[in-house]
Amino acid sequence: MRMRNKPWAIDYLNEHAHIVDTEGKYTKNISAFFDKEQPIHLEIGTGMGTFITTLAERHPDINFVGVEVAKDVLIRVLEKVIEKNLTNVRLLLFDATTLTDYFNPQEIDRVYLNFSDPWPKNRHAKRRLTHENFLKQYEVILKDDGDLQFKTDNRGLFEFSLISMNQYSMDFNEINLDVHANEPEDNIRTEYENKFSALGNKIYLINVNFK
Amino acid sequence: MRMRNKPWAIDYLNEHAHIVDTEGKYTKNISAFFDKEQPIHLEIGTGMGTFITTLAERHPDINFVGVEVAKDVLIRVLEKVIEKNLTNVRLLLFDATTLTDYFNPQEIDRVYLNFSDPWPKNRHAKRRLTHENFLKQYEVILKDDGDLQFKTDNRGLFEFSLISMNQYSMDFNEINLDVHANEPEDNIRTEYENKFSALGNKIYLINVNFK
Repeated sequence: MRMRNKPWAIDYLNEHAHIVDTEGKYTKNISAFFDKEQPIHLEIGTGMGTFITTLAERHPDINFVGVEVAKDVLIRVLEKVIEKNLTNVRLLLFDATTLTDYFNPQEIDRVYLNFSDPWPKNRHAKRRLTHENFLKQYEVILKDDGDLQFKTDNRGLFEFSLISMNQYSMDFNEINLDVHANEPEDNIRTEYENKFSALGNKIYLINVNFK
Repeated sequence: MRMRNKPWAIDYLNEHAHIVDTEGKYTKNISAFFDKEQPIHLEIGTGMGTFITTLAERHPDINFVGVEVAKDVLIRVLEKVIEKNLTNVRLLLFDATTLTDYFNPQEIDRVYLNFSDPWPKNRHAKRRLTHENFLKQYEVILKDDGDLQFKTDNRGLFEFSLISMNQYSMDFNEINLDVHANEPEDNIRTEYENKFSALGNKIYLINVNFK
């Protein structure tokens, strides 16, 4: 099923308004979107959704929010949520530059960034999801003891992110420069991760707190 | 020439007391050991000395100090200094745990750590040259705008070092997770670096300041 640029994509998403918010209906009120009040983990850029839906299956005691800017991609995630009958996942269609417009301060327990766009050109550095401008937003919406977990196979983006997070005075908890060398049981591979690891790319991970 | 455990090693070093200090003669007075007053760069753990002697050839305007704890290794460095007729290298025979006993505060412009012993067991973490206890010493002897440059092919040691330096509130200037992928002209390969890079190991680098 090829969905790209299907004009009915937005209609399809809106037909599932109990799972997907395309219009900012739950702005500053995300808790009301979920059945249960429990910690909220946020993935920024869901891709095809294998990561967030697998994690949500394993952790019914956590509410998961997936943010994705591309409608046709978000449909693939929605399909997985429906197929797996998950009640602890909600999906948001918007651009991550507006996170603090949508969420309340100190509302999120963990942020996940998985294989974010590396934006390799220097003039696009501000678009990288680990640029200072985004870190500022995560700092606002995360709880004081919340953390950020970031995986990528892109060396340039990882080097940039380590420096950006260090310069932003974040605290490094864990660094792994080859996640698959001794893969932790709780590692969930994204579609992208499987593909690029098979090509011999190293998978890098960092877990950080704000001070 | 196999030198290990030769009883005359210390005599040989002492015969070249204008290059090597084995007895702490220049304690708190390293400037007096050099012909010219110029910035001082310090390598901790010289290994066989290819790095420091090549660097010293390229930069006659800098004084280089090599610290090494093993006599038989230091002889190999001394031979290179003599052979290359270098007047801007001095060698010290001592253990790096006593750096602040030897050097004055704010005396050093740059510290180099190259392929330091990874001490992989957790109970030996304090022996790693990027452990907090060593960072404290570098902070004392380095000038305010001095920097530390560290290379290794050991993933565990590099991950540990990034966290250790971050937790010590150091400022990351540069991170390179594959120095040889696009090797900078000013990279000087140590003997060890050549050997382990040829085996497919990635060479990692970090350059940091104290805040």
